[in-house]
Amino acid sequence: MTIYEIIAKKRDGGELTPAEIRFFIDGYVKGTVADYQAAAWCMAVFCRGMTAGETAALTEAMVASGETLDLQGIAGTTVDKHSTGGVGDTTTLIVAPLVAAMGIPVAKLSGRGLGHTGGTLDKLESIAGFDVQMDQARFVAQVQAIGLAVAGQTAQLVPADRLLYALRDVTATVESVPLIAASIMSKKLAAGCQAIMLDVKVGHGAFMKSQAEAEELARAMVAIGEKLGRRTMALLTKMDQPLGNAVGNALEVEEAVAILENRTLYGRGRVSPDLREVSLALAARMAWLAGKAETVAQGRMMAEEALRSGAALAKWAALVESQGGTWLGGERLAESLPQAQENCRIGAPVDGWIGAIDGLAIGRAAASLGAGRVKKGDPVDSAVGIVLHKRIGDPVGAGECVVELWHNGRGVTEAQALVKGAYQWATGPVAKPPLILGEIR
Amino acid sequence: MTIYEIIAKKRDGGELTPAEIRFFIDGYVKGTVADYQAAAWCMAVFCRGMTAGETAALTEAMVASGETLDLQGIAGTTVDKHSTGGVGDTTTLIVAPLVAAMGIPVAKLSGRGLGHTGGTLDKLESIAGFDVQMDQARFVAQVQAIGLAVAGQTAQLVPADRLLYALRDVTATVESVPLIAASIMSKKLAAGCQAIMLDVKVGHGAFMKSQAEAEELARAMVAIGEKLGRRTMALLTKMDQPLGNAVGNALEVEEAVAILENRTLYGRGRVSPDLREVSLALAARMAWLAGKAETVAQGRMMAEEALRSGAALAKWAALVESQGGTWLGGERLAESLPQAQENCRIGAPVDGWIGAIDGLAIGRAAASLGAGRVKKGDPVDSAVGIVLHKRIGDPVGAGECVVELWHNGRGVTEAQALVKGAYQWATGPVAKPPLILGEIR
Repeated sequence: MTIYEIIAKKRDGGELTPAEIRFFIDGYVKGTVADYQAAAWCMAVFCRGMTAGETAALTEAMVASGETLDLQGIAGTTVDKHSTGGVGDTTTLIVAPLVAAMGIPVAKLSGRGLGHTGGTLDKLESIAGFDVQMDQARFVAQVQAIGLAVAGQTAQLVPADRLLYALRDVTATVESVPLIAASIMSKKLAAGCQAIMLDVKVGHGAFMKSQAEAEELARAMVAIGEKLGRRTMALLTKMDQPLGNAVGNALEVEEAVAILENRTLYGRGRVSPDLREVSLALAARMAWLAGKAETVAQGRMMAEEALRSGAALAKWAALVESQGGTWLGGERLAESLPQAQENCRIGAPVDGWIGAIDGLAIGRAAASLGAGRVKKGDPVDSAVGIVLHKRIGDPVGAGECVVELWHNGRGVTEAQALVKGAYQWATGPVAKPPLILGEIR
Repeated sequence: MTIYEIIAKKRDGGELTPAEIRFFIDGYVKGTVADYQAAAWCMAVFCRGMTAGETAALTEAMVASGETLDLQGIAGTTVDKHSTGGVGDTTTLIVAPLVAAMGIPVAKLSGRGLGHTGGTLDKLESIAGFDVQMDQARFVAQVQAIGLAVAGQTAQLVPADRLLYALRDVTATVESVPLIAASIMSKKLAAGCQAIMLDVKVGHGAFMKSQAEAEELARAMVAIGEKLGRRTMALLTKMDQPLGNAVGNALEVEEAVAILENRTLYGRGRVSPDLREVSLALAARMAWLAGKAETVAQGRMMAEEALRSGAALAKWAALVESQGGTWLGGERLAESLPQAQENCRIGAPVDGWIGAIDGLAIGRAAASLGAGRVKKGDPVDSAVGIVLHKRIGDPVGAGECVVELWHNGRGVTEAQALVKGAYQWATGPVAKPPLILGEIR
């Protein structure tokens, strides 16, 4: 077996055996397969695709390239949740305590934001003192103690994915369904949970622009999970306008906590009903995946009760405290979080309805204020961001404030231009867009 | 313009502009485009193909990556000839002096053998003292003086091709028609001749296994030549059994010289009528390409006369002398050439006819005796090789010698096994296979 033969076989549309895929991944991690050979292989996979069997074998080989988290010591069915990334998507901050409140252990590894999308770790770190660096022993102990932990992924997990992702990023081989599916699922499998809930975003603000693409990716990921012995399910959710009304790290924490507190208003704005709805939809299915609920409908009732009763909020408080964060709830929450110095309001240019909001442009605008990164390792400004006061379908009067920028003086002109360009105005009523587009199991 | 966008455009089946192709080639030669990006680009081209316009632009960009030979000082239309490589293909040694004898200047850059195929430079170097290293001034001066020179390609010609070829060789992106066509044609264009005659080999012993593939390659190359202002034509010729009866450097020189001497026998064997026929067919078309003959038929008559009259042989003698070789013609030719110490004859196992000879296996057998290289830079043994005494369609009696190995003790067992396995025997008459399969202009 040689790497040349393996590249040639995929190039000619052949189906690689698990042994051939392991040979490639092992060789790439060890350095006996060169970057240029891996690049040719990725492009051949991009052009020729992969069968479900190949994609599962790739995922397994990637998982085997590094350490895996051992969650055996945790009682109950651990459930993980992954979103393919969007703008204003703060669901993890709501879903993790909500699911934990239903008695399901949540051992969640999260990432940082890049480009126009935010990252859970960045959001949590906007809370003074919150520590996302935990070793495995402390991580497992916290889940055993309070049913919940959220930490950063260590470098020892799936090294093959880090190498491949960096290579794909500079060789135009990112947008390949089997490569994306294997990348996501290898990290989920290595993270050790027994069940996996996927939230695949569809739309302008997401990686997958069309429902067909998103469905293809969702099916590929569910097939991998099921093949490799994890209960797996995917929800397809709309991501054109931002999911939450807040876009920016501390602002998103404020909005998420307002939902956990059963409020509709928070310091800077109003809670997005879409963010609440997607969080409940995910939590309901996670209860079903974990075997806590017999049906998704029953899971939904349990999730609504955990929110209403304050059990979810209590889990959030326990999480923040256990990971060293300063927790000043209720009206004093903002004291725990950094505050942007200045704001700038953008009004509607005409009487009418909001026809469309380009989430991608809003995400980029927030990034240009300092909320996001252009490249890995860039610092982020936790305080800055954008708050939507109106969503698609809302009626507005000329001059009425539709969106507010919270900034510290950096990137404001660029952000204003991006935000203004993100809105489309209609002269007649516009229907609220559908939110949940489908479910794959 | 970024290399990422260029790779992504080709990956998605787009047509690259000449400026995009130049950006890629210039960047790769300068080192601003990485090997892994070039590998992804080559695989994208392999999978998606290229239009005739893209292939011509690629060829031009490759030519522009290095120096080009200036043949302006040579009177008349210079004609180059290129074969895609086969076994026992000694046509250059016959065609170059034959065409020069018709008054057409021949300024020929040649290569070395690799794998199962021989190289013109290796064959010429089997003549004691023959020097293939010439600078441009001496090369042009020799063509002006005697109408003919054959030299090795310098490192300054088409550096992009050397880089790309080495990369394609380890990334399974060799067998792509536009990449092969641009590689060959960039070297022909940089070599400066005004007209180009291509001999595209088809069959088991060649790179192109099917006539359809060979035609596709021939059409691509002719299109490049014509687009870039060179009169270009291609002949498709059969390469299943070796073209000549001799396979091995000095043995092939002996057979070629016997044809130039109008003999049918030489020291070790009998002249292959196929080798003579393909040489005349190429020379006839080169006379037409150069404008010396009004039709190919007229070119054919001129070529036969140049051979019959001894004019071609005289040009050969002038070539060898001018490049420092020791020339002992006629029956004493073998004294100019190294002689293998031992021979080993293989007889027919049964009464019957020769049904097939696998040229690739014969080429590998000669290489295992030391006539060829496994990798670049390996030394070759000029003396060793294989002489066919019978060709496809010839009747044989059981035990009659059909093939002879000339060796110096190295690789004999492996070569014998390969040669024996290369023959298929028929119990009834077998037709001689067609030799010239088509012509593309």
